[in-house]
Amino acid sequence: MREVFQSQLTEVQTRLVEIAEDTVKIIEKATKAFGTSDVSLADEAIAIADGSGNKALALDELVIKILARQSPVARDLRILVSALRISASLERMGALAGHIAAIARYRFPGAAVPASLTATFSEMGSLDVKLAKQVVELLKNTDVDFAREIQAQDARVDELHRHVFDVVLGDDWKENAMFTVDVTLASRYHERFADHVVDISSKVSYLTTGDWAETE
Amino acid sequence: MREVFQSQLTEVQTRLVEIAEDTVKIIEKATKAFGTSDVSLADEAIAIADGSGNKALALDELVIKILARQSPVARDLRILVSALRISASLERMGALAGHIAAIARYRFPGAAVPASLTATFSEMGSLDVKLAKQVVELLKNTDVDFAREIQAQDARVDELHRHVFDVVLGDDWKENAMFTVDVTLASRYHERFADHVVDISSKVSYLTTGDWAETE
Repeated sequence: MREVFQSQLTEVQTRLVEIAEDTVKIIEKATKAFGTSDVSLADEAIAIADGSGNKALALDELVIKILARQSPVARDLRILVSALRISASLERMGALAGHIAAIARYRFPGAAVPASLTATFSEMGSLDVKLAKQVVELLKNTDVDFAREIQAQDARVDELHRHVFDVVLGDDWKENAMFTVDVTLASRYHERFADHVVDISSKVSYLTTGDWAETE
Repeated sequence: MREVFQSQLTEVQTRLVEIAEDTVKIIEKATKAFGTSDVSLADEAIAIADGSGNKALALDELVIKILARQSPVARDLRILVSALRISASLERMGALAGHIAAIARYRFPGAAVPASLTATFSEMGSLDVKLAKQVVELLKNTDVDFAREIQAQDARVDELHRHVFDVVLGDDWKENAMFTVDVTLASRYHERFADHVVDISSKVSYLTTGDWAETE
């Protein structure tokens, strides 16, 4: 029985890693599409995001089945509940990255971001891609020190998010309302993407330390 | 044993209703603060939102305890898993309403919304308040027809959200970047608030119909 359960837990982990790998693909294509106004890359990002939602749904069903058949307690139970939360975060990350791609798509053939903010969004996009890749590693290895290391990087994304507002609300900002809307939303999506990475890392820390309060 | 379990389920329901009632208070105060630039109402909204997060955390702990002690299956298990999802949505609704209040606070004593969009935000705010109140009723009564009725109202919020962009991106929009940023974010927060209402209603429908696919 224990062996069956262990193989089911491994299946859950494998599927979470798979969804996280999708998220990496989506954010990579989305940030590249956003930076270079590449509409076919944007379409690819949106298509993967749509498919990834179904994988999260299927994973939830699997977790509910395992809960029903195995009635796990203690740490095993918490792993499964955390898997539900992690799958929800990954799904949102995919959706947010899809929104970034959608902005690039709407503005094509024009740019979604003006020259004054290209470098900021380039750094924010690279950070989100890096964080998504680290989530894949974290879900494979569930190392609590690595989880904390990941969380610490969110501060820079927040800093860049605030910088976008400083630029947009500064005296030198002469762009039209369309640019203002696009960079406001895109910056928000990048920031929320990184927030979900922090949430996932907290769940993994929690599985090791047992401190649920740390997870919010 | 069954009686103990039933009283635990009732406790979960009672706590969900309580958090939903907080959400009503937060969105009522937030939308009023947003429409009238009332900074003390905004502070009240933000304070309730902060406290409500802890209630959601405590509810999650309770649900995990019940799962461990009762090992529920079938519908009972799905009720508890849905409670985790609903609590997460309620927490996000509180946070989003808090963000709306925060915009009013930042812009005080100025207005957060220009005259050309006052009516739109007033309707969007009223709709969000109405939807939050309906969520309270739904969590009390879990009526599937009422759940569907609630979901149908989201379309109008989406329509108003699109209207905000039509106005902001239209030729007549002469407001400064600050107004553009504020109305973009505020509209997004209102729309996401209603999205979570739809998610919660779907979970309740699912508990009755058993169709999980309907829930996403």
